[in-house]
Amino acid sequence: MAGQPGTRSGRRERLAQRAAKPKFNPCPPGQIGGAYKPLTEAEIQRIYGAALDLLERLGMGEVPERLHADLLAIGAKDDGFGRVLLSPALVEKAVDQAARTFVLHGRDESRSIEVGGNRVHFGTGGAAVQTLDLDSGHYRPSTLEDLHDFTRLQDVLTNVSWFTRCCVATDVPDRFDLDANTVYALLKNTTRPTATSFTLAEHLEPIVQMPDIAAGGPGEFAKRPFMKAHISPVVSPMRFGEDAVDVVYECIKHNIPISCITAAQAGATAPATLAGFLAQSLAETRASLVMVHAIQPGFPTVFSNWPLVSDLRTGAFSGGSGEAAVLNAASAQLSNWLGLPSGVACSMTDAKAIDAQHGMEKGITSLAAALAGGNLIYESSGMTASLLGVSFEAFVLDDEMHSHTYRALRGVEVNEETLGIDAIRDAVLGEGHFLGGRHTFAAMERDTSTRRLLIGTSRASGLNGARMTPGHGHVFGRGRFYAIITLPT
Amino acid sequence: MAGQPGTRSGRRERLAQRAAKPKFNPCPPGQIGGAYKPLTEAEIQRIYGAALDLLERLGMGEVPERLHADLLAIGAKDDGFGRVLLSPALVEKAVDQAARTFVLHGRDESRSIEVGGNRVHFGTGGAAVQTLDLDSGHYRPSTLEDLHDFTRLQDVLTNVSWFTRCCVATDVPDRFDLDANTVYALLKNTTRPTATSFTLAEHLEPIVQMPDIAAGGPGEFAKRPFMKAHISPVVSPMRFGEDAVDVVYECIKHNIPISCITAAQAGATAPATLAGFLAQSLAETRASLVMVHAIQPGFPTVFSNWPLVSDLRTGAFSGGSGEAAVLNAASAQLSNWLGLPSGVACSMTDAKAIDAQHGMEKGITSLAAALAGGNLIYESSGMTASLLGVSFEAFVLDDEMHSHTYRALRGVEVNEETLGIDAIRDAVLGEGHFLGGRHTFAAMERDTSTRRLLIGTSRASGLNGARMTPGHGHVFGRGRFYAIITLPT
Repeated sequence: MAGQPGTRSGRRERLAQRAAKPKFNPCPPGQIGGAYKPLTEAEIQRIYGAALDLLERLGMGEVPERLHADLLAIGAKDDGFGRVLLSPALVEKAVDQAARTFVLHGRDESRSIEVGGNRVHFGTGGAAVQTLDLDSGHYRPSTLEDLHDFTRLQDVLTNVSWFTRCCVATDVPDRFDLDANTVYALLKNTTRPTATSFTLAEHLEPIVQMPDIAAGGPGEFAKRPFMKAHISPVVSPMRFGEDAVDVVYECIKHNIPISCITAAQAGATAPATLAGFLAQSLAETRASLVMVHAIQPGFPTVFSNWPLVSDLRTGAFSGGSGEAAVLNAASAQLSNWLGLPSGVACSMTDAKAIDAQHGMEKGITSLAAALAGGNLIYESSGMTASLLGVSFEAFVLDDEMHSHTYRALRGVEVNEETLGIDAIRDAVLGEGHFLGGRHTFAAMERDTSTRRLLIGTSRASGLNGARMTPGHGHVFGRGRFYAIITLPT
Repeated sequence: MAGQPGTRSGRRERLAQRAAKPKFNPCPPGQIGGAYKPLTEAEIQRIYGAALDLLERLGMGEVPERLHADLLAIGAKDDGFGRVLLSPALVEKAVDQAARTFVLHGRDESRSIEVGGNRVHFGTGGAAVQTLDLDSGHYRPSTLEDLHDFTRLQDVLTNVSWFTRCCVATDVPDRFDLDANTVYALLKNTTRPTATSFTLAEHLEPIVQMPDIAAGGPGEFAKRPFMKAHISPVVSPMRFGEDAVDVVYECIKHNIPISCITAAQAGATAPATLAGFLAQSLAETRASLVMVHAIQPGFPTVFSNWPLVSDLRTGAFSGGSGEAAVLNAASAQLSNWLGLPSGVACSMTDAKAIDAQHGMEKGITSLAAALAGGNLIYESSGMTASLLGVSFEAFVLDDEMHSHTYRALRGVEVNEETLGIDAIRDAVLGEGHFLGGRHTFAAMERDTSTRRLLIGTSRASGLNGARMTPGHGHVFGRGRFYAIITLPT
């Protein structure tokens, strides 16, 4: 049979076009949320009022001495029974002067993200103590090597916008060594924005030299900080924690942006009722904000009101429930309503295996938080087993999930081209289908999420090649992992 | 040591209270959706206008003779080129006179559900041809026995509000036998509202005798129909399908409520752009409504605008994507905005195994559709493999998922009791926690979703015991499954 070269080559061309790698990502991180509003305006007002009331009449207990002085200096009152009361005027002033948006820098500036508004970013969090071993398929204690590997892995995943250490290196018993080696693992293996935590305030001064080295010398890191700190200065219900408050002071001194995380547990350290939970945790997170305001007004802070849920029948922490979904969505809505950069914790699961329960619980909780406009969605990648475990496979699967969530967030653009009335008329009056038409191809290239069930090869993106001053490594040399941070000379 | 009997018995009591089966379901089916609005009011208006425009200027093709006459009788115009044009006035009149809510009866009246408003119900759908075999763990062709088993299984699951046959009995080749035995399987094994489909209109007259027997005699079923029909009278783009239109006429004659399902595929039979898709499918589903209006104004009809998505790079149907989530949510929003009972298809997955992809894709798509207020969410239980497969395990897991979704939908009740300011004060100034307090226990009993990872024993709920007239079985005795419908004498 004689071929029809024109047609066949047209078909070949179309097939090649379809098989080609997409030219760009149609639904990158930072999509806009907020179309889901779990609370009505009246409900927000009532929860907001209850939170103000709690701060004014009950206030905060166990206020460390330095913070006590700083709070009283800006107008807080001591009730004479060991509690510091914060008036509505003071709380609202702190909110008014808070940073509305700020840039979370990557060491590679092209990977920086802006936090605030209704922009949604998924990132990590967590302090898993067990790693799902890739070879054995069983959980075993997490190691420093795991942390390096997880950091390298996420560096090549599209939808992790920042990396907080996801596991604790349980083979590093010394707390300073742990803090130091955690920071090193982040610096060595990713150029994304990072986050860590500091056990004690005195760890900061020596450890911050490390990012200074990466940034080009002493004091350079503070000019463009590419690492933030996760701190929980409030111990629910309604008290401060001294060690964490000290870390806040030290972070502000070194210009390290902070996430002030309120991690109350419904039914244990906060009311089991969702409204009561939100009122108390909103009060507590606002107390953190007043604390920051007392130290340095407007200091970049993620308003991290993380509702955590306990299974009231067993007492176990439950990260993957319908309650977790709606509570975190409501928390994001409240924070965004206040105009503050919001942080919530979602995409958690109580499943131990990487199974249907894993996908389902992560799917519903992460979509709820994202649709509500959570700015930074923590714990969103890799975590398993009610945050006790972390898994390499889960990181990859969760990254795929985030791309679907971002596609859903991107929503429906309505304009003349997307309505495509002419394309509909052509199909109806012509061939009776839309396959292979111009309008269809344009949409494929522009709008359609792509499946990426295979991950790219992990690549090194560490300190190699960054501007560094040799010889600064010695301050970290107290533990057996010193060797890891030997710097090139 | 001397015991403290009072305290210990108090503790025993609390433990027993916690271990007790919950007194009632805190998040039953029928929760209210609508807090997620993927489209703005302006976007809705523009899509709505485009749909009206398509019906007025392009109209519907291949209109069967009888329908052609009925449409022209109510004011539609023939354009002289084989298409029937529907004016905005006619379309809006059909919407105005459509049933806003109606009752989907169960054979057991206590299992009836009201369809409409923003009430959300998950149910089934689908025509899987492969069953994931419980014993072998492999897919094999679906059988009539499977259909009986699936019907029995869903009958004891809490969150399936109605049951549409989920698989095709591929061992019943004759189309009449298939339709008849499908209806029998539904009647025998569940007292819930049911739904089926009819291949040809002439199957109805003989088959409807079967529900009549169950209802108590000839004509009794029509008085309280406990089975609806799924029909796709529109063939996208913008044409009618003659066989299906004939089934519509016959269903209306027998007072069988109908779901007029528009099942266009983005990029194949509808635009690949989401806005264009919604405009065309809204036009098509409204054309179905005008058809119903022409036959019998106000006849109970589910406005079933199901956006289906193709992977444009492979041409494969893709049920579990971010596009599917946002499109079905937007479709539910549009239908509810029109005030019509809305049907969408979500909780689909492209996963073949019951794995993390299965859970994730089902989780995000079902939550999106539910938060948007989809009244009847089809395909929501048991389906796998882009609707080609169905699984017993998936039915059970999906039921658990729905309970989480319903809990999220229930949202946050805000009142004095749930704000619990007194409970917070007591905890803060007292023991420093909320464990075991009155407020916590009350919330546990009233509000908290329970995990049900073990399913109850399947129970028979079939024709046995229902009022029946013996001897009516013979009309169905054409195939080898006649024995199944032998009635007691």
